[in-house]
Amino acid sequence: MSHTVLPHTVLIAPSGFKESLSVEDVTGAIARGVRRAMPGATILAAPMVDGGEGTTRAIIAATKGRIFDTRVTGPVGEPVASFWGMMGGPGPATAVIEMAAAAGLSLVPRDRRDPTLTTSRGVGELILRALDHGARRILIGCGDSGINDGGAGMARALGARLLDAEGRDLPEGGGALHLLDRIDLSGLDPRLAHTRIDVAVNWHNQLLGPKGVARVFGPQKGATPAQVEALETGLETYARVIRHVIGVDLGTLPGAGASGGLGAGLVAFAGATLHPRFQIMLEYLDFDRLLSRANLVITAEGSLDGQSPYGKVPCEVSRRAEALGIPTIALAGTIGKGAQETFAHGISAFASIVKRPCSLEEAIAQGDKLLCRAAEDAMRMLLVGERMVLRARAA
Amino acid sequence: MSHTVLPHTVLIAPSGFKESLSVEDVTGAIARGVRRAMPGATILAAPMVDGGEGTTRAIIAATKGRIFDTRVTGPVGEPVASFWGMMGGPGPATAVIEMAAAAGLSLVPRDRRDPTLTTSRGVGELILRALDHGARRILIGCGDSGINDGGAGMARALGARLLDAEGRDLPEGGGALHLLDRIDLSGLDPRLAHTRIDVAVNWHNQLLGPKGVARVFGPQKGATPAQVEALETGLETYARVIRHVIGVDLGTLPGAGASGGLGAGLVAFAGATLHPRFQIMLEYLDFDRLLSRANLVITAEGSLDGQSPYGKVPCEVSRRAEALGIPTIALAGTIGKGAQETFAHGISAFASIVKRPCSLEEAIAQGDKLLCRAAEDAMRMLLVGERMVLRARAA
Repeated sequence: MSHTVLPHTVLIAPSGFKESLSVEDVTGAIARGVRRAMPGATILAAPMVDGGEGTTRAIIAATKGRIFDTRVTGPVGEPVASFWGMMGGPGPATAVIEMAAAAGLSLVPRDRRDPTLTTSRGVGELILRALDHGARRILIGCGDSGINDGGAGMARALGARLLDAEGRDLPEGGGALHLLDRIDLSGLDPRLAHTRIDVAVNWHNQLLGPKGVARVFGPQKGATPAQVEALETGLETYARVIRHVIGVDLGTLPGAGASGGLGAGLVAFAGATLHPRFQIMLEYLDFDRLLSRANLVITAEGSLDGQSPYGKVPCEVSRRAEALGIPTIALAGTIGKGAQETFAHGISAFASIVKRPCSLEEAIAQGDKLLCRAAEDAMRMLLVGERMVLRARAA
Repeated sequence: MSHTVLPHTVLIAPSGFKESLSVEDVTGAIARGVRRAMPGATILAAPMVDGGEGTTRAIIAATKGRIFDTRVTGPVGEPVASFWGMMGGPGPATAVIEMAAAAGLSLVPRDRRDPTLTTSRGVGELILRALDHGARRILIGCGDSGINDGGAGMARALGARLLDAEGRDLPEGGGALHLLDRIDLSGLDPRLAHTRIDVAVNWHNQLLGPKGVARVFGPQKGATPAQVEALETGLETYARVIRHVIGVDLGTLPGAGASGGLGAGLVAFAGATLHPRFQIMLEYLDFDRLLSRANLVITAEGSLDGQSPYGKVPCEVSRRAEALGIPTIALAGTIGKGAQETFAHGISAFASIVKRPCSLEEAIAQGDKLLCRAAEDAMRMLLVGERMVLRARAA
């Protein structure tokens, strides 16, 4: 080790910048900037995805895994192009699925946005593909969904039967769930019993009630007020039958309302475990091992402000780093009101990517370049501190 | 010394932010920000003034000296409120005068902006005040002038006589200089011979020729094209007579054109020495001694860009710091094109004061607060670097 340079191992763990830069773009821009200031730095990456669109590709890219393209039943019942991934690296074969790739809102044509009819069946089909490829663990990301069927379609794809009082199979969609009377699990894929399935959810998404998925998210998915109430009634029936047959109380389970109730269905039919989304992402990305190799963490999000300590990526990352005594710096498009509150949550310093007075549109258009520069500039500032200590020691 | 904190002695050596923050405002805002991140820091200040408006007050504030309010003959011949200062600190009694306080453009009413008539007499009167108070050294700042008399008025105030071919005293103003035939120095104040007078000038201001003061600055001071030529002719005559009588060639002397030729007059009549402005300011502020105590320098200017290495404050400061191995960081409202060129001139890192997309007007309106925050944020980033080294050493 030269007496003027500390070896730098920098873990880049950012969020994407909403409607501007994907998490891979953000990670790449920061990495380029770090290298410009510290050509010898070792760079590690843990893209912080939330389970929604982009989750699979980001994790597969970070772990040098493989994406499998496939076709599944889409949310309106017609086939759609979809994909899932198998993570790279050592350990048991681990698949990654984002539910939005099979039942996302963006797969529902605008004129067919009726969440009483849309189905999660394609998610079950992706799970089957992963099992066919020998997956022993499956990470499923929730978010950006276009369905409200409680995972009933997914359950059927896995071999379960949902029957009415006459013993007839229910039609697809959350609008039919109020007819549910019995569940037949005899045809369920037996491989599920030997597969660990973890689900990344927003921990605050409830299945039922005034803050339940139908009432909070139904309108966003195109439901009329009357449909919202029909969906709520259907999910109540669904939860009651499941409690009776399977013995799980989904009404109070945190995260059971994730992705139109898919969280509930995964717990009930696939033996899955729900997790706060960033916690399980960090586990699958082996974040703690990456962290143990790093002496600096860089995180980023579109905005850093007083809300950041409450479930946003930067503080999720910085709290873990701080526990190991590793400093975290945050880069953001906007350093907003209350950003200094992040200091109490492990952020040691922050910087905006903006370099001069400019419009939001300009900042977004130049996001990649600005972020790269901001990372470089932050590293240069940090190197001044290093130099001061080394100079003091040499004196 | 705690094992986690290096003692910080920070020298703040910024420029003012044009039309926004005075150099004292800038220095104060940076100092507050540094203290927020480093409560124990020792803060030294060297406000980087250019000789123009604000120079005296900034130097007197920085050296804890004293301002003397007085009245002098203004540029249009009527009395004006003026001031000069006596520096604090040890050493010989040292006065500071900015020419703009007695003959500045802002003292010339808009409807009387005729540089063939305006006079530098008030500058000579300020020199006399300083001599009356026992000054042994006088620093005179040039810049922001409203005159073009080559310092003729100043010379008369000091006791010189400027005569035409008939032996009559010339009237005030540059428009009469073409009549100059003889100079009578017998009445010159004898104290000048024992007083060191240093003048801070823009080294590129020439007295005569296409790039001379009349042609470059005459129009800004209200001269018509015909008046510009008359002023040029007058200064040519003035320089020829001075070369003949006093033996100084002002036509080629760098800085002789400063402040409407006041630089020339000060050399010819007051025995002054002209200096590149920042060089002499740094000397009077005892910059090298301050620098020798510091382990970090913070400079600032409204904009940092590819022009900064060419005579702007940040690089004037950073080159000196680099010679002693001390890192300099720069803060700026705008980090502009080519800012990275400053790295080759001793700037180690820079940061914008802007924290989010915003308009220039917003940035200016919040300049003080943004600058304070930027200093704090930069110090926090720098402390991350210190912490990384100290953590590595402890491991």
